[in-house]
Amino acid sequence: MRIDVTDPEDPQIEVFQGLRDHVLRQKRELPNGDMAGVFICEGDIVVERALAAGYRLESMLADARRTKPLPVSVPDEVPLFAAGPKVLQRVTGYHQHRGVLACFRRRDVPSVDEVVATLSEAATVLVVEGVNNPTNMGVILRCAAALGVEAFFLDQRCCDPLYRRSARVSMGEAFALPYARFGQWPEGLSGLHSAGFETWALTPDSAAEDIGRLSIDPTARVALLLGAEGPGLSDDALSAVTRKVRIPMSGTVDSINVGSAGAVAFYAVQQARLRT
Amino acid sequence: MRIDVTDPEDPQIEVFQGLRDHVLRQKRELPNGDMAGVFICEGDIVVERALAAGYRLESMLADARRTKPLPVSVPDEVPLFAAGPKVLQRVTGYHQHRGVLACFRRRDVPSVDEVVATLSEAATVLVVEGVNNPTNMGVILRCAAALGVEAFFLDQRCCDPLYRRSARVSMGEAFALPYARFGQWPEGLSGLHSAGFETWALTPDSAAEDIGRLSIDPTARVALLLGAEGPGLSDDALSAVTRKVRIPMSGTVDSINVGSAGAVAFYAVQQARLRT
Repeated sequence: MRIDVTDPEDPQIEVFQGLRDHVLRQKRELPNGDMAGVFICEGDIVVERALAAGYRLESMLADARRTKPLPVSVPDEVPLFAAGPKVLQRVTGYHQHRGVLACFRRRDVPSVDEVVATLSEAATVLVVEGVNNPTNMGVILRCAAALGVEAFFLDQRCCDPLYRRSARVSMGEAFALPYARFGQWPEGLSGLHSAGFETWALTPDSAAEDIGRLSIDPTARVALLLGAEGPGLSDDALSAVTRKVRIPMSGTVDSINVGSAGAVAFYAVQQARLRT
Repeated sequence: MRIDVTDPEDPQIEVFQGLRDHVLRQKRELPNGDMAGVFICEGDIVVERALAAGYRLESMLADARRTKPLPVSVPDEVPLFAAGPKVLQRVTGYHQHRGVLACFRRRDVPSVDEVVATLSEAATVLVVEGVNNPTNMGVILRCAAALGVEAFFLDQRCCDPLYRRSARVSMGEAFALPYARFGQWPEGLSGLHSAGFETWALTPDSAAEDIGRLSIDPTARVALLLGAEGPGLSDDALSAVTRKVRIPMSGTVDSINVGSAGAVAFYAVQQARLRT
């Protein structure tokens, strides 16, 4: 059902308003926020992938002049708001708008145990601690999905992986993997340990094992732990794992960007599995 | 020589003004721009690394209230401008200023042949095409320096690797590696070929060789080619290389962020060298 919108403040498109203040917006979409229960996607690919992952489309805001087909078909009972460039720019804050915005209904996030129950026998999963930068989260999730990670688990301090910027940077791969949040951290890792996971903490510590020299038992389940840019993993997390691993670095460099570190680690685990 | 500054428009600190417009600023620092010959660093670590790499400090702008020692000692003939938070914020556009800004003198960029002449017998180098996003450039260079790359080469479309944001994201590693720009692209690759380099183009093309399965002759020199986020390497570049390599990916994902792809590729080459 197409509805033309000419006023950026039109209450019909309230869910698409206030996207420019990242911090406030993330709070509003939290369980107790006034926008709890929905998330916003932008761009054709991301919208497609959210729908493919089974999220329910609630409304869409598209450029009224758009001639290219919409990325997904919009059922008649779903409002399709059409707006001119001025409205779109006021709403999104971009000079160039990414073609389409869509509002999806969130699902209940399962428990760690529920996600674990869906995994393959020799799964690789990702555990993220303290990454509250949505861009870093998106880079990590895109790469995790590409390099054999089956699911991801977050501590309470990580940002929302479905938040608009994270989902966009992930090219929609944030929707591709099941995920859960730990209630207790790092105590919650015991749920992974009892499901047979080894836990590998990525650290620049020179005393850690070289991740390139490890082999993995064909039946082993591995959970890779990544900490935030800057501080890395907390001492509590490092104390709770079964193994500490490092990426071998040269020169005077002692650390790399968290996205790069994740990429190397996912790849290294994938290669270690192939060697066995 | 400390000089207190109270006016954000003070012509004495002209070189630190206009940092907020990334596009314009990059143009001004180009060879024909009105600020040709200098570059700006921000943050203690980056300033330290620029000095360690041999760049000459021309002036510094620091928080007048700073009690922490400056990252480098400022000779008496070099102006050390001291300013309050309001001036610093107006100059940099940040609410929180990174402690210190420094202006360094650029050096002449050597030719590709001159850089090649300085490399080890079995060097790994990086060739970048079309990466004009300074953040991506910085992520790539930090990771390259960490994972065994000895030098990097850019086509004409790549952004300035010493540009403030690139240098900051690289944590100053942009200064650690020698670099040159190709005059002709991709014809300039012949300079690498005649110096004994194999050229490996990173591509998502499924017909390319799996980078995880390659071994490298102990005496081989390898130049890894990375293209920009989105389009990747041009057809011209892909036609000019000796080998096309891909990162093995799972699921429906067909590409990853250029920084992540670089990280995996640098690591894969490093590991292939260890295997031989």
